[in-house]
Amino acid sequence: MSTPSESGVPRRRTDAVRNRHLVLEATKALLAEGGNAITVTVISQRAGVGAATVVRTFGSKEALVDAAVADLLEPLIRRGRAALSEPDAEQALRGFLVEAMAFQSAHWVMGERLGVMELPATAAQRAALDGVGLDLITRARDEGVIRTDLDVAVVAVLINELTYAIARSASASQSLSEAYLAVILDGLRPQPELP
Amino acid sequence: MSTPSESGVPRRRTDAVRNRHLVLEATKALLAEGGNAITVTVISQRAGVGAATVVRTFGSKEALVDAAVADLLEPLIRRGRAALSEPDAEQALRGFLVEAMAFQSAHWVMGERLGVMELPATAAQRAALDGVGLDLITRARDEGVIRTDLDVAVVAVLINELTYAIARSASASQSLSEAYLAVILDGLRPQPELP
Repeated sequence: MSTPSESGVPRRRTDAVRNRHLVLEATKALLAEGGNAITVTVISQRAGVGAATVVRTFGSKEALVDAAVADLLEPLIRRGRAALSEPDAEQALRGFLVEAMAFQSAHWVMGERLGVMELPATAAQRAALDGVGLDLITRARDEGVIRTDLDVAVVAVLINELTYAIARSASASQSLSEAYLAVILDGLRPQPELP
Repeated sequence: MSTPSESGVPRRRTDAVRNRHLVLEATKALLAEGGNAITVTVISQRAGVGAATVVRTFGSKEALVDAAVADLLEPLIRRGRAALSEPDAEQALRGFLVEAMAFQSAHWVMGERLGVMELPATAAQRAALDGVGLDLITRARDEGVIRTDLDVAVVAVLINELTYAIARSASASQSLSEAYLAVILDGLRPQPELP
């Protein structure tokens, strides 16, 4: 026989909050590990709650995955925003690229599998991440460490595409990542006039 | 009643050569168009020969696809080899990257679909292409237009990965390709000592 709380209501609320947390953390862990089938059964086993609870807590599996991915993106967005107030604009951009590569290396399989899902919170976080990236590039450009002969939006897309490619490369290695950062950052600098 | 050739044998040989050509060209066209299901039926319809002829001519569908893809890669390898004797090493590398990007833009869907097939002639052509790329990079490095602080093999992998990423990018555009070439080639140059 379970111990009832004094009124019953606070206990139900506490349980709901606890279950929500367990379900969300389990889903984040499964997504971050990659290679897992993200089914209600698998999530409920990992979270240690019933399948009905998994569905009830977030309304749908898509809503749950959306909340989990949005949560996983949060630290990277925060790091990017913090980089904006670092004193050296080029080091700030470099640091953010290193973080973004590490994140994408760990999570690109997850990203590929989300392709067809409707994930509004995730889309908003991705937009926030793109915004932070663009801010870091714009700042570096304003401070004269990025060339101005290329459109800033094109540079942002270029950096996104290239960083993502290196992060998910089958031949990804420390030396490849370092060579990439050296070449991209040197190539983005204002270029001397050729003789 | 069909007209027999004088001995019968030369006519059969001529037919075999003609069918081989028809089947190979049909397969190349289907591969190059992308999005087609490459089945014996589809190939035989495109080539205007019977399904049995498609299989008989190359022994198996895999052998046929192998010959077709190897053939499609041939002009790019030839262009790369020709670039090796162009006078300007950097322009030669740039020209080859432009060709490689155009080829990959047109054919990356095909490449993705070949993943699980055993294609020895294609593998040999890809190795030849990698070899030509490495030769162009090594020459540019020897002539002082590529920085020497990065391992040449790492530079080759880096260029492969980045060029492929831009070629297959969903946001691929003329301005993105041009920005990529500017940034990668400037970033690969010997870098001035920073103050």
